[in-house]
Amino acid sequence: MNAEIRTDTTLPTITEVRLTPILIADPPLLNLSGVHQPYTPRLIVEVEIEGGIVGLGETYGDTVYFERAKALAPELVGQSVGAVNTIGGIGQEASTLLEAQPAASGLRGALTTDKVRLSVLSAFEVAALDALGQQLGVPVHALLGGKVRDHVEYSGYLFYKWAEHPVEDALGDDWGAALDPDGVVRQARKFFEYGGFRSFKLKGGVLPPDEEIAAIRALADEFPGMPLRLDPNGGWTLRTALHVAQELTGVVEYLEDPTATVADMAEVHRRTGIPLATNMIVTALNEVRPAFDADAVQIVLSDHHYWGGLFATRDLAAVCRAYGRGLSMHSNTHLGISLAAMTHVAATVPDLEYACDSHYPWQREEVITTPITFTDGAVTVSDAPGLGVTLDRDAVARLHERWNAMPELRDRDDIAAMRRAKPGFEDPGIPKY
Amino acid sequence: MNAEIRTDTTLPTITEVRLTPILIADPPLLNLSGVHQPYTPRLIVEVEIEGGIVGLGETYGDTVYFERAKALAPELVGQSVGAVNTIGGIGQEASTLLEAQPAASGLRGALTTDKVRLSVLSAFEVAALDALGQQLGVPVHALLGGKVRDHVEYSGYLFYKWAEHPVEDALGDDWGAALDPDGVVRQARKFFEYGGFRSFKLKGGVLPPDEEIAAIRALADEFPGMPLRLDPNGGWTLRTALHVAQELTGVVEYLEDPTATVADMAEVHRRTGIPLATNMIVTALNEVRPAFDADAVQIVLSDHHYWGGLFATRDLAAVCRAYGRGLSMHSNTHLGISLAAMTHVAATVPDLEYACDSHYPWQREEVITTPITFTDGAVTVSDAPGLGVTLDRDAVARLHERWNAMPELRDRDDIAAMRRAKPGFEDPGIPKY
Ligand SMILES: [Mg+2]
Ligand SMILES: [Mg+2]
Repeated sequence: MNAEIRTDTTLPTITEVRLTPILIADPPLLNLSGVHQPYTPRLIVEVEIEGGIVGLGETYGDTVYFERAKALAPELVGQSVGAVNTIGGIGQEASTLLEAQPAASGLRGALTTDKVRLSVLSAFEVAALDALGQQLGVPVHALLGGKVRDHVEYSGYLFYKWAEHPVEDALGDDWGAALDPDGVVRQARKFFEYGGFRSFKLKGGVLPPDEEIAAIRALADEFPGMPLRLDPNGGWTLRTALHVAQELTGVVEYLEDPTATVADMAEVHRRTGIPLATNMIVTALNEVRPAFDADAVQIVLSDHHYWGGLFATRDLAAVCRAYGRGLSMHSNTHLGISLAAMTHVAATVPDLEYACDSHYPWQREEVITTPITFTDGAVTVSDAPGLGVTLDRDAVARLHERWNAMPELRDRDDIAAMRRAKPGFEDPGIPKY
Repeated sequence: MNAEIRTDTTLPTITEVRLTPILIADPPLLNLSGVHQPYTPRLIVEVEIEGGIVGLGETYGDTVYFERAKALAPELVGQSVGAVNTIGGIGQEASTLLEAQPAASGLRGALTTDKVRLSVLSAFEVAALDALGQQLGVPVHALLGGKVRDHVEYSGYLFYKWAEHPVEDALGDDWGAALDPDGVVRQARKFFEYGGFRSFKLKGGVLPPDEEIAAIRALADEFPGMPLRLDPNGGWTLRTALHVAQELTGVVEYLEDPTATVADMAEVHRRTGIPLATNMIVTALNEVRPAFDADAVQIVLSDHHYWGGLFATRDLAAVCRAYGRGLSMHSNTHLGISLAAMTHVAATVPDLEYACDSHYPWQREEVITTPITFTDGAVTVSDAPGLGVTLDRDAVARLHERWNAMPELRDRDDIAAMRRAKPGFEDPGIPKY
C-alpha cells in the first residue's frame, strides 16, 4: 500500500440538475404574523452525476427561490461532484434587500438576494454530498469528518394551532387545537408519545405574553426538569421581553428572539442574564460580529438552508466555538431530505449541546420512501451511503401536480392565510406585544 | 441508483500507529533567540488500517511531543479511520503552562500542554485523512470539500544565516551567508531561481531594526511591487515596532508579530494602520477573541500543527471570515508530509488571499520518495489518493539512527546552539530591541 501512488483520481462530473417545486400539506400552525397555509412550497433538487447516481437536496420553494435555482443550476453542470467548496461561490454578486420584514417563509430576519442564493446553494451542496457519498460508498457525515455521535436529539416543536384549516380542500390532521395552556400540554403529551422528545419548544408571539408564560409554566409542571424554550420571532417590545425574561428565568433553557433588534436583545440579556437564542438577527456571516460584540446572542440556531450548506454549518459552529457561544439548529417546514441533511451535519459537530429544532413531526406528506422516525427524541444517524434516503418519485409527481394546480399558494404567506379565515386581518407587524 | 439503499458502510479501523522520531539537517538560520541547530527533531507518524493501507503524518519531534504522542497513540487504535472529528477530543484535559516564553521549537507563543496535545493530534488527523483518502481513492482535499484552486502559493522565506554551522559534523549547504542587505537580496535571488517565488518574508529580530529595515528596502528595490513581510517574532518594544511600522508602511504587505502582546500589537495597528499578522498571539481558539476584540491582528497565520489538524484549520478560516480577518499560513522547519498536508488544506479555503509560509526550501533531507517542487512560487495540488506522498523508509531509518546517536539534539534549543558558537551567549529575551 506504500507503493508509489501517483494516479490521479477523477470524480464523476454533474450531468444534470433537476428542480421540482412541490406543495406539501401543512397544519394550521399559528405564529406572530398569521397561520401556516394548508399547503406550503418546497423545492426538490436532484443532482445526477456521470454513471447515473442521483443526489438529493431540498430547500425553500417560494417563487424567488425557485427562480434563483433555475438560474444557478446550469452552473453546477460539468463540475466535479467533489467540488463542494466551489458551490458557495456560484452566483455571488452584490446583495440587495428583498424584504425588510421577516419573510413569512422562514421568519428569518430581513431577506436579501444573498440569503436566497445561499438557500438555493445549500440544496445543491447537500445533493452533491449525497451523490458523492453514494459514489464513494460512505455516508454524508463521513464527508464532513465523520460522526461524533450515533443519535441527534431534536426538541418537540409545539405550536398554537387550530383544529383545522378554515378553508376547504385542506388536508386534516389529528393533533387537534391548542389555544391555551391545556391545549399546549395536551399537544406536548402527544409529541412525547410520538417521538419521546426530551425537550420542548413553543412557538410564541401568538397570544398575549402572559398567556404564553402560563403555557410554559404548565409545560414545566407537566414535564419537570425538561428543557423548555419560547420563541416569539422577535414579536415583543423590549419592555415585554424584559417582563417575560424575568418571569421565565430558571424556567426556560433559553428565550429565542424575544425582540427583533441586536440592541434590544443585548439589553434583555444584560438586564436579566437569561440566555438568548436567535435565528433572526444572526442568519448570515456578516451578522455574526455585531450580535456577538453586543453580547446579544448566547446561542446561535444554525440552519443549513440559510447558511449555504453543511460545510457552512460547520463553519458557523467553529465561529460559535471561538466566541464561546452555544449552537443549536433552527427549522422551518421541511421534509425528510432536509432532516437527513440536518442529522448528518449535527452528528459531526462535537459541541452541539442543545437539542435541534425540527418541524418534521408536523408533516404528513413525504418525498422519501421511508419516513424518518424519532426515538427518545432523537434521530439515528444513518451510516448508509450518502444521505441514506430514497426519493419517492410518485409522491414528488403528485405534490408537483398540486403545485401546478394551486398557483395562489406558491409563495408562502401566513398573513394572507390568516386573512382567509379572518377577513380584514392586518399584519400586526413587529413588535406585536 | 435510486434503489433502496440502506446498507451500512463500514470504514476500516486503525490497527496500528507507528511513531518514529528523527533528526533532520537544518541550516544555520538565525532568529531572535539564537540559531537553528544543525539537526532538528521531527516526528513521523504512520497510521495503518485494516487492509494494510498506511497514512502519514508529521509534527514537532521534541521530547514533550514524542512523549505525548506515545501516550495518545493507543487511543487511535480500534477507531474507524473515518472518525476524524473524534480525534480532536483525544486526551483532552485541563491545560497547564509548559513554557511562558515562546518555545524555540516554533516561536509559537507560550507553550501549554494543550498546544502540545493538538500538535500531536494534528499528525494523527493528517495520517488518518491520508489513509482514508487512499482507501476511498480520493485526494485529501476531496475529504475537505474539494480544492478551489490547483496551485497553492508560498512566499520565499528568507533568513539571516551563517555560511555554515559552527560545529563539526553538520551538513553543509550552498546558500552562503546572509548578514546584511546584500546577503539577503542575494538569498532572495537564489530563492527566485529555485522556485520562482512571488513574495518574500524575512525572519527578523536578529539584527538592530534599522538594519532589517534596510534589508527590506533592498528587497523592495530588487523586486519592485513584490509583497514583502518582516517577522521579528515579537522581539521589539512598542517604541521600536512603531518606528519600523512608520518606516515600512507601504513597503511591506504586513508586519508579523512586531511586538509580543495583544495590547502592544493593537497599539501599533491603531497608531500606524499597518496590517499585522501573527502566529504568536493567536495560536489557539481561546486566544482568538481577545486579539480580535482589541483589533491587534488583521491576518492570522494558520498552522495545522498548532491548531490540531486540517479540519481545525478550516475552522480557523471560518472564524477569520466571520470577523473580516485575513488568513495566511505559518511554517516551522518541516518536511514533505507536512507540506503536502498544508497544500491540501490551503487548496480548500476559498479566501486564502496571502501566500503561505514554508521552510521547506531550506530542508536538504526528506522522508518522502519524491520531494515537492515549487513553480512560480506555488505547489501543484495533488489529485492522487490521500496526501499523494510516499514514505522513503530507508531515509526514515537513517534519520532515526541519527536521533538515536544524538540525544543532545532531541529538543530544539536555538539558544544552546548559539552558545556553542558564542560561549557565554545569553538569551536576549523579549523585547530584544
Ligand atoms: Mg426562531
Ligand atoms: Mg512568525
